[in-house]
Amino acid sequence: MMATMATNPPHDPAARELFEEMARWPIFDPHSHIDARRPAARNLDEVLGYHYYTELAHSAGMPADRVDPGLGPRERAKNLAGYLDRIDNTAQYSWLMEIVRTFHGFAHDRITPENLDQLYDHADRDRAGDGPAWDREVWDRSQLEAVVLTNDFDDPLEGWDTRKFVPCLRTDDLVLKLHDPSVVERLRNTTGVDVDDYASLRRAIGVVFGRFVEHGARACAISLPPDFAPHRSTPMRAVTPIRRALHQMDFRADEHDEVRRVVFWTIAEFCAEFRLPFDLMIGPIRNVYPAGVAGGRDLFDRRVSLHDYRELFNHFSGVTFPISTLSPDAGGELVAYSWIFPNVVPMGHWWYSNIPTFVAADLRARLQAVPKVKQVGYYSDAYKLEFVLPKFNMFRKILAECLADDAIRGQGWSADRALSVARLVLLENPRRIFAGAAG
Amino acid sequence: MMATMATNPPHDPAARELFEEMARWPIFDPHSHIDARRPAARNLDEVLGYHYYTELAHSAGMPADRVDPGLGPRERAKNLAGYLDRIDNTAQYSWLMEIVRTFHGFAHDRITPENLDQLYDHADRDRAGDGPAWDREVWDRSQLEAVVLTNDFDDPLEGWDTRKFVPCLRTDDLVLKLHDPSVVERLRNTTGVDVDDYASLRRAIGVVFGRFVEHGARACAISLPPDFAPHRSTPMRAVTPIRRALHQMDFRADEHDEVRRVVFWTIAEFCAEFRLPFDLMIGPIRNVYPAGVAGGRDLFDRRVSLHDYRELFNHFSGVTFPISTLSPDAGGELVAYSWIFPNVVPMGHWWYSNIPTFVAADLRARLQAVPKVKQVGYYSDAYKLEFVLPKFNMFRKILAECLADDAIRGQGWSADRALSVARLVLLENPRRIFAGAAG
Amino acid sequence: MMATMATNPPHDPAARELFEEMARWPIFDPHSHIDARRPAARNLDEVLGYHYYTELAHSAGMPADRVDPGLGPRERAKNLAGYLDRIDNTAQYSWLMEIVRTFHGFAHDRITPENLDQLYDHADRDRAGDGPAWDREVWDRSQLEAVVLTNDFDDPLEGWDTRKFVPCLRTDDLVLKLHDPSVVERLRNTTGVDVDDYASLRRAIGVVFGRFVEHGARACAISLPPDFAPHRSTPMRAVTPIRRALHQMDFRADEHDEVRRVVFWTIAEFCAEFRLPFDLMIGPIRNVYPAGVAGGRDLFDRRVSLHDYRELFNHFSGVTFPISTLSPDAGGELVAYSWIFPNVVPMGHWWYSNIPTFVAADLRARLQAVPKVKQVGYYSDAYKLEFVLPKFNMFRKILAECLADDAIRGQGWSADRALSVARLVLLENPRRIFAGAAG
Repeated sequence: MMATMATNPPHDPAARELFEEMARWPIFDPHSHIDARRPAARNLDEVLGYHYYTELAHSAGMPADRVDPGLGPRERAKNLAGYLDRIDNTAQYSWLMEIVRTFHGFAHDRITPENLDQLYDHADRDRAGDGPAWDREVWDRSQLEAVVLTNDFDDPLEGWDTRKFVPCLRTDDLVLKLHDPSVVERLRNTTGVDVDDYASLRRAIGVVFGRFVEHGARACAISLPPDFAPHRSTPMRAVTPIRRALHQMDFRADEHDEVRRVVFWTIAEFCAEFRLPFDLMIGPIRNVYPAGVAGGRDLFDRRVSLHDYRELFNHFSGVTFPISTLSPDAGGELVAYSWIFPNVVPMGHWWYSNIPTFVAADLRARLQAVPKVKQVGYYSDAYKLEFVLPKFNMFRKILAECLADDAIRGQGWSADRALSVARLVLLENPRRIFAGAAG
Repeated sequence: MMATMATNPPHDPAARELFEEMARWPIFDPHSHIDARRPAARNLDEVLGYHYYTELAHSAGMPADRVDPGLGPRERAKNLAGYLDRIDNTAQYSWLMEIVRTFHGFAHDRITPENLDQLYDHADRDRAGDGPAWDREVWDRSQLEAVVLTNDFDDPLEGWDTRKFVPCLRTDDLVLKLHDPSVVERLRNTTGVDVDDYASLRRAIGVVFGRFVEHGARACAISLPPDFAPHRSTPMRAVTPIRRALHQMDFRADEHDEVRRVVFWTIAEFCAEFRLPFDLMIGPIRNVYPAGVAGGRDLFDRRVSLHDYRELFNHFSGVTFPISTLSPDAGGELVAYSWIFPNVVPMGHWWYSNIPTFVAADLRARLQAVPKVKQVGYYSDAYKLEFVLPKFNMFRKILAECLADDAIRGQGWSADRALSVARLVLLENPRRIFAGAAG
Repeated sequence: MMATMATNPPHDPAARELFEEMARWPIFDPHSHIDARRPAARNLDEVLGYHYYTELAHSAGMPADRVDPGLGPRERAKNLAGYLDRIDNTAQYSWLMEIVRTFHGFAHDRITPENLDQLYDHADRDRAGDGPAWDREVWDRSQLEAVVLTNDFDDPLEGWDTRKFVPCLRTDDLVLKLHDPSVVERLRNTTGVDVDDYASLRRAIGVVFGRFVEHGARACAISLPPDFAPHRSTPMRAVTPIRRALHQMDFRADEHDEVRRVVFWTIAEFCAEFRLPFDLMIGPIRNVYPAGVAGGRDLFDRRVSLHDYRELFNHFSGVTFPISTLSPDAGGELVAYSWIFPNVVPMGHWWYSNIPTFVAADLRARLQAVPKVKQVGYYSDAYKLEFVLPKFNMFRKILAECLADDAIRGQGWSADRALSVARLVLLENPRRIFAGAAG
């Protein structure tokens, strides 16, 4: 299989056998930022422009203006390439090498400013004018089955096959930025509701949910800062803060909290009504490093606990909450909450936690302590289709190694038994949770 | 040895050799919830009813009413068996398989509703009417030497050999529920003291300690929520809150805190006086998921630090505090506190932290940084005797693997040197701390 | 090589090959507490008196008075030796064994009170009167290239070769103890500035920086408690608190905070002006266990986050901050902050985090996610020169094992590629950051 040749399969023979079987399976990717209208990268700049590369290169000494949006794509790519040798130890760099080897026939050891032009030309679909064909090629060579998107609430959701590119309603703006005039404006425009107070806001959100589910949406998602603690909404108490937010009047921090809480709770109610899983991505603080490159400014405060979410999990017992936590040290708590709450599902390995050693630590614990039927192994979080395969291959390799160590050698399982768990975690659970919810 | 054949010994030969030697040793279990009057399970429902199975099955989709106390034991067991395939990846499930293979001659690969009846019959000691003989058989086949219990303060402590089933005074009710009328009532009844204020409360607690020590108690224990911070008691300031609690008058949160603190401190004083180690089990929050199954409703908030306990550890320098922490990420801090405070002892691997990957991580750190003479390796926390062996075997296996990796291969130790550390951790330290304290 | 024979090289052949190469390299030690005037131990008491041994022995049961400063050095050493068998499982003990084998020809398996006298005599340089020659011998046999010191602000910085023993300005006293009369007095004496208010304090600190840089200082360092959060100084608001501190008047906790913040910020400004990296050692709380042995009284509260440092990292974008965190569970956060902020550099593995299992976990994550050009692998934190080699060997071994596992077997790297990363982390990055800053 071309797609699997480029990665380094596990060194251990038992793990390698498991990995090779997994590499034959289709990929169901339950969370991404793919643009369904333009899923694959049109040129190398769209690959190298992934924030992992720009932020790591910047962290390693590249001035942010070297990847300024005002520059041409080839120039940006070339500028970045000049810094890749500083970050070639990272897991993120290994995804890049797998992409250029798998999809662009790159045969050198490293990407350098010297060999960049040739690679750029080879990967240039803008010039070739065959973007849609390339989208299909990447899709097929990656053996993709479905990719769940992250759509703004006013995304028209038209122009693609929603069984392949599955819509998911992203609700960050509604919960966290309701006071931003452009958000309310967009909400009014997309729903036709004259949003003016809590009642009309609720109606508008209902309209959004209705339209999303009609267009095949299978999930709702949000990322939440560590200082957010969902508590039961008290629309009564929220009346005034909501009105202030909607009319961009000054409001206090505690009123902002109230607004966030009541809008969040309202969205959870619609998830219950429309039977959508509600992905919670817990932890990021936006713009901690404002001088960073685009996409490379957010961090976290590790002092966060799922205990803050107890009221939510109890109240919405009918809503499935696939949970991702950002801080690498928070993984043990997620195992415990998933082990107790039927509606809490550990989902993938997110962002700062998505490096092999953190993935392996979290995965081992989940495989040992969370019912196998409720684990969502992995998602790509990718912006461009090319990243789905190398990221999933990284995970498949770790999964194979964990199962070979702990289950096959450790517990005496057969390879088939290990593979049946892998299949649940990689394919069957995501399909059930993200493809069976509505319709 | 029958008892050790059922487990999967370590795959690595050096670890296997260590494990096989450890498996010949008796077990000293320094913390359990065994009922000394009925230590082994009388039927399979008493095994499958362990909260690990009911809560994991519930988390995996089993309605809580399938294991309702109102159902018959065989029906409950059968209901649960229908969900075991969903949790057969877990470490907890592996204990179950070791139990049925070791003690009930079970030869199938899995427990299913189809083969449940036969297994149930085989394990049915109620029908056989040979409960006490079975207790002895499980005891002998597990090579048990002693099991430390967890006794309510009004437990009569009579009817068993307290050198084998060693009493331990559980003080949760006194510290955390003094405002509950039944608690005060039980305290009055068991001590004959007319508990009415701080002075009489203190007298009553003294009577309880006296009776426990007379009956062979070797430890005092308590589980404490993350928001509890022990500070030196100020009986003067506590006079009014204590009185309010004892008379079930309304009292504020800060008064409740004051009551918890002063009663806790008083108990620590009696530990000093009666020379009992005081087991602190730090972390659980009760009833976080009220709709869960019995025993499966508690969780934690991982934001907890042993720094809150500094005053206690300093003040009671003569009291040994064997410490268990609940949150898997808190293990590193316990290593540091054990390495500095002579009276802080890291004890076992508790509950949500008691899965192989967390145990291994914590154990490695303890073996590398805490004096070997003050580590209490493991305790079963079991409710039924059958669980002691598989849980200890899980730990012995991890201990063998850590020692083979880090000490034998890593440091060039001989197997004998590694085994001498294992023996301290598994046997000699627990014996010294929990069997030599009083008398 | 004599220096490398005493340690246990990695068992795995690929790791062993990497280790053997690294063991040939010189050592650049970027942080220590070495006294440049008396760098090597003059007798065994100066080795055994390292707080790791006295605190672990005390934790294991040795009364603190057995190592009282009032006793003779041989007696202290002998007393301590009587407890070494209780801590011979620890990583710290393995450093000791490597020291006595490498530097003192010790051939026994263990140090005991029985063989202590012979060893003491062999290691006795006081009697031999050849201290400086011994300093050179330890230096040469350890293949040291440079050792960064930690100097009090009034250290005269004279009497040694500052290219080998590189000065570093320790600023704990100025930031945390400005209210201590002896601190102000020392500051007045060393600078000749009549420190009296914020303006004169600032002048005095500038004088200190000037003198340090003139004498070859290459870094500034401080250790900060978990409750310290650096925020931008407001000298205006600090005027009164500073004056109160300088004149030892009573001041409130919030005024103390203000003083700490403004002095810290001022020092960061001088780091920017003098182009010195500012080592932040985050986490310790002093004197948590006051009855402990000297150097063995400090612990931490693990609830700490680098998010508290965001303003500092943003404001001083031109200052490099090599960061060490004390709590073992804080390592993941440091990886994320180093991956985003160009001026945040993960530095070594500190104190309670400096045991193999914590080092390995942190190192793996750094190698996978932080640009290789900005990692400072290790520092000894040693008080005596003999400790540099065994500590670095411990780290080299772990580094070799991580690279063999993750990079060579996991990613298919060549040994040369793995070694080039090791060389950056061990040598080239520390040289660039700590030897190229000034001058």
